[in-house]
Amino acid sequence: MHTTSELQEIIEKAIKGLSYSNHPKNLYDPISYIMNLGGKRLRPALVLLAADLFNGSLDEALPAALAIETFHNFTLIHDDIMDNAPLRRGQQTVHEKWGTNNAILSGDVMMVESNKLLTKVKVSVLKEVLDTFNATAQGVCEGQQLDMEFESRNDVSIEEYIDMIRLKTAVLVGGAMKIGAIVGGANEADANLIYDFGENLGIAFQLQDDILDVYGDPEKFGKQVGGDIIANKKTYLLLKLQEIVNTEDAVLLDQQAGNKDTLLKIERVTALYNQYDVKDLAVEQMRNYLDKAFAALSAINVPQHQKEEISGLANELMNRES
Amino acid sequence: MHTTSELQEIIEKAIKGLSYSNHPKNLYDPISYIMNLGGKRLRPALVLLAADLFNGSLDEALPAALAIETFHNFTLIHDDIMDNAPLRRGQQTVHEKWGTNNAILSGDVMMVESNKLLTKVKVSVLKEVLDTFNATAQGVCEGQQLDMEFESRNDVSIEEYIDMIRLKTAVLVGGAMKIGAIVGGANEADANLIYDFGENLGIAFQLQDDILDVYGDPEKFGKQVGGDIIANKKTYLLLKLQEIVNTEDAVLLDQQAGNKDTLLKIERVTALYNQYDVKDLAVEQMRNYLDKAFAALSAINVPQHQKEEISGLANELMNRES
Repeated sequence: MHTTSELQEIIEKAIKGLSYSNHPKNLYDPISYIMNLGGKRLRPALVLLAADLFNGSLDEALPAALAIETFHNFTLIHDDIMDNAPLRRGQQTVHEKWGTNNAILSGDVMMVESNKLLTKVKVSVLKEVLDTFNATAQGVCEGQQLDMEFESRNDVSIEEYIDMIRLKTAVLVGGAMKIGAIVGGANEADANLIYDFGENLGIAFQLQDDILDVYGDPEKFGKQVGGDIIANKKTYLLLKLQEIVNTEDAVLLDQQAGNKDTLLKIERVTALYNQYDVKDLAVEQMRNYLDKAFAALSAINVPQHQKEEISGLANELMNRES
Repeated sequence: MHTTSELQEIIEKAIKGLSYSNHPKNLYDPISYIMNLGGKRLRPALVLLAADLFNGSLDEALPAALAIETFHNFTLIHDDIMDNAPLRRGQQTVHEKWGTNNAILSGDVMMVESNKLLTKVKVSVLKEVLDTFNATAQGVCEGQQLDMEFESRNDVSIEEYIDMIRLKTAVLVGGAMKIGAIVGGANEADANLIYDFGENLGIAFQLQDDILDVYGDPEKFGKQVGGDIIANKKTYLLLKLQEIVNTEDAVLLDQQAGNKDTLLKIERVTALYNQYDVKDLAVEQMRNYLDKAFAALSAINVPQHQKEEISGLANELMNRES
């Protein structure tokens, strides 16, 4: 068994060692660029942690881990185009640096690169790995589409929101772990259980994100607290508040959408969140998904002590402050 | 053995039978839309023709044929965004109808759909099929990138141009046939020969396109003759002319780039093509690639009469008038 940080180191080294064609240069440079912008390498680490859980070979799981990280970064390139985002991890986004058309195409070829990496897994599990990967990739596209559509809708339900974050964020966490488990030799039941663990953890993680945006410690959060409020982002907190707010406060809340005084806006919306105990409701929902995740993990048929690295990481993620 | 039109019918029926998820609707509707815009279904037909050549099962090759057609249509969606094209086969392009962000994402999920279709081939050939498909998909992205880059360059050589059309168009023809051959049970040598046939045929086909644009019969061509000239498109003919033209005529040619009188522009550029026998040079080059294609086909280790459907189709394509 390896620690998460050992695995992150293995991945970081492997990413540094990845090389791409150089012709045409502008097609491939964005791949090295975004792959080396950093990040915690959580998704590929989860692939290796899952393989390790079933005493699988890390060497065999590593290409799949790199495939997941490559796929994730491909989605970042295309998402940044759609979101018109100028910066990614403090650096220019690919479409800002190379232009939108170039970024579309570099993303496309990056998807091919992830498929190429995936074909390096043992032939005996190739079909199963691909089925899991394709279902995952499809879910991620669906989640991004829903996220875009929600921006212009005013009737998004909590249920729809949870489904969106499940698709956009959580299926990739589940898929990464399931792929690691398959390569690591898990049986179907255990592979599905680790998927459930990952998916539920992913949803809990995203709800935590929504909570931290409002209630994070400004000293530790790393981003501006209240960023989602300023952007009128439909988070769990906002949708929950809209569901339970009385008519009078609903008017007050609606008025905030156009409030140009951002500090006042954050203050007023946060006051409403506090008044309606929205944080507690969000925490409860988050704990629900976390409980589901741990129930799945606990049902996996390997000695409990082998699960400690994974449960430790999950707890660490859920207690994070940024 | 089946005729090309029998195979095209099988494919057309199978495409009509394809169904996609309906959630989110706007993610999947563009897939059905573009897949049903029509077209000659040449690429998937070539998959089946190649499988048939080696007495392979068409049922087994059909998902791979659909994967190739799906992939091809995905590239059309993204290319149309990059080219800012309003129309595709006389209908609105996907990005015109659904918006650019939606079109990027529908293209992405379509790439996943083609990968899903590919996993339906026999497990015994899955790895080989995927390797061929991924190399092909990568080449197509490279070709599109080069094509975009050539637009703003004035020093594109004939060699670079041939390499671009090879990647953008011909590797998919070769790749489609190689995948069909692999599924059909061809050995590696024959699979590579049919790839060579397809790739060289693809290059010849594209050169033919360049020639037809200038010398096609206006009654039969279907598009405006001289469209490439109006658009200042760097075709084989233009690049060849630029290579051999004398200084005086080079000035005349350069002046045409900005000529707003399109009929006069077509007339003058065509006159230069005629004066320098550029058509003959292009036809010679095209025949070169066609000869290479037929040499590869003839070297394939199956009875010659089994190759007649494929050679017949190739000849038909090369004698086309539109």
